[in-house]
Amino acid sequence: MNKLYVVGLGPGNPAQMTYQARAALDEAEVLCGYTVYTDLVAPLYPGKPVLTTPMRREIDRCRMALERAAGGETVAMVCSGDAGVYGMACLIYQLAGEFPPVDIEIVPGVTAALSGAAVLGAPLSHDFCVISLSDLLTPWEQIARRLRAAAEADFCIALYNPASRKRADYLRRACDILLEKKAPETVCGYVRNIGREGQQSQILSLAELREAQLDMFCTAFVGNGQTARLAGRMVTPRGYEAKL
Amino acid sequence: MNKLYVVGLGPGNPAQMTYQARAALDEAEVLCGYTVYTDLVAPLYPGKPVLTTPMRREIDRCRMALERAAGGETVAMVCSGDAGVYGMACLIYQLAGEFPPVDIEIVPGVTAALSGAAVLGAPLSHDFCVISLSDLLTPWEQIARRLRAAAEADFCIALYNPASRKRADYLRRACDILLEKKAPETVCGYVRNIGREGQQSQILSLAELREAQLDMFCTAFVGNGQTARLAGRMVTPRGYEAKL
Repeated sequence: MNKLYVVGLGPGNPAQMTYQARAALDEAEVLCGYTVYTDLVAPLYPGKPVLTTPMRREIDRCRMALERAAGGETVAMVCSGDAGVYGMACLIYQLAGEFPPVDIEIVPGVTAALSGAAVLGAPLSHDFCVISLSDLLTPWEQIARRLRAAAEADFCIALYNPASRKRADYLRRACDILLEKKAPETVCGYVRNIGREGQQSQILSLAELREAQLDMFCTAFVGNGQTARLAGRMVTPRGYEAKL
Repeated sequence: MNKLYVVGLGPGNPAQMTYQARAALDEAEVLCGYTVYTDLVAPLYPGKPVLTTPMRREIDRCRMALERAAGGETVAMVCSGDAGVYGMACLIYQLAGEFPPVDIEIVPGVTAALSGAAVLGAPLSHDFCVISLSDLLTPWEQIARRLRAAAEADFCIALYNPASRKRADYLRRACDILLEKKAPETVCGYVRNIGREGQQSQILSLAELREAQLDMFCTAFVGNGQTARLAGRMVTPRGYEAKL
């Protein structure tokens, strides 16, 4: 049957891809995706056709992939991080009904919450939330409500899309909401360009995170009430320490 | 410098490991971990020494790994899924101060929230929470508070450790809390033995999940108010459909 893989590439360097992801790319006759992501893998496959659409043309991109797969080619739609976490998997399923049957297989990958956490130490070792601060597709009120709930119940939080040129003050607004319930000294961190050239990270307080100048290449992490700095790392205890 | 890798293996089959994880295992002179996890990788390395401790002896296990690394061996502590999500990364950092300096490197992996989601479709395509229902290390009141917050703010939820022999009714109790705010027809799913022999999955309503007989090999998924069944899959829209 016609086959469409939706592949999570991980943070961007080939070493953090899974063997399953690599096998899907090997098998694919056509690679498809946003240019920034196809550029990460195209060099591994010289001569393999690559279909791209510009930023924000996700619907066209998914239709293109489905159309080619329905036409008989094995297609790999590539996503950064995981294929399902703010990735293209949902849209592929939503659009699949417009085309003849295609066998869709989701290939998971290491999302930024995990790859970024590994750089900082162990910030997500207890219950956590993943929240995107982008209001392109979600009303800010909904984002604010989730930030408030996450703070009230003392979750660790991974913040995706913490800022962009057009949303320069969103991280500050998010931190203000978190500060209604979380202490200003709550241990936080961020990582820029996870696993890629120019990787950079910092551990800082929630009050300091509020002032940090992050961009769309960053993922931010907010600890829970137990998260500590330990030898330069951000560490959220799992609870074993009660047995020490 | 003495080196200790804390390695997330992914769901358990070698194909879902990253290249980085495999390289750490290759380099390690000693493998360390809970037997169930070391058994997954030991066959790849015949003759490589394996150090294990029984279930719940996590502190001994981490001390053993740190001691061997401090003594000059390159050690890989293996964890299922990701090294930081309910894994050993935090405990390694907490105990490291007891030993001479060791270079600790966390190697992230595909946690069950991601690998299970890929089996079901795209259930976590919008903001989500990861919550463990195990009260071995966390008071039930804290778990209940987080479930309540996650339901109130309409997060998608991945439930780890949804049940065990001693906690047979925990999933039911959790669903009862979620049902205070989420509709009984909320689309849910679960996966048993993700990526391993005997993998099994089901999509069902929240009311049905409440009655499901899950075990410690399962991960459960609860949708948000927009999550739908689409051609037999569990799909949470990201918001692009507003543009369709």
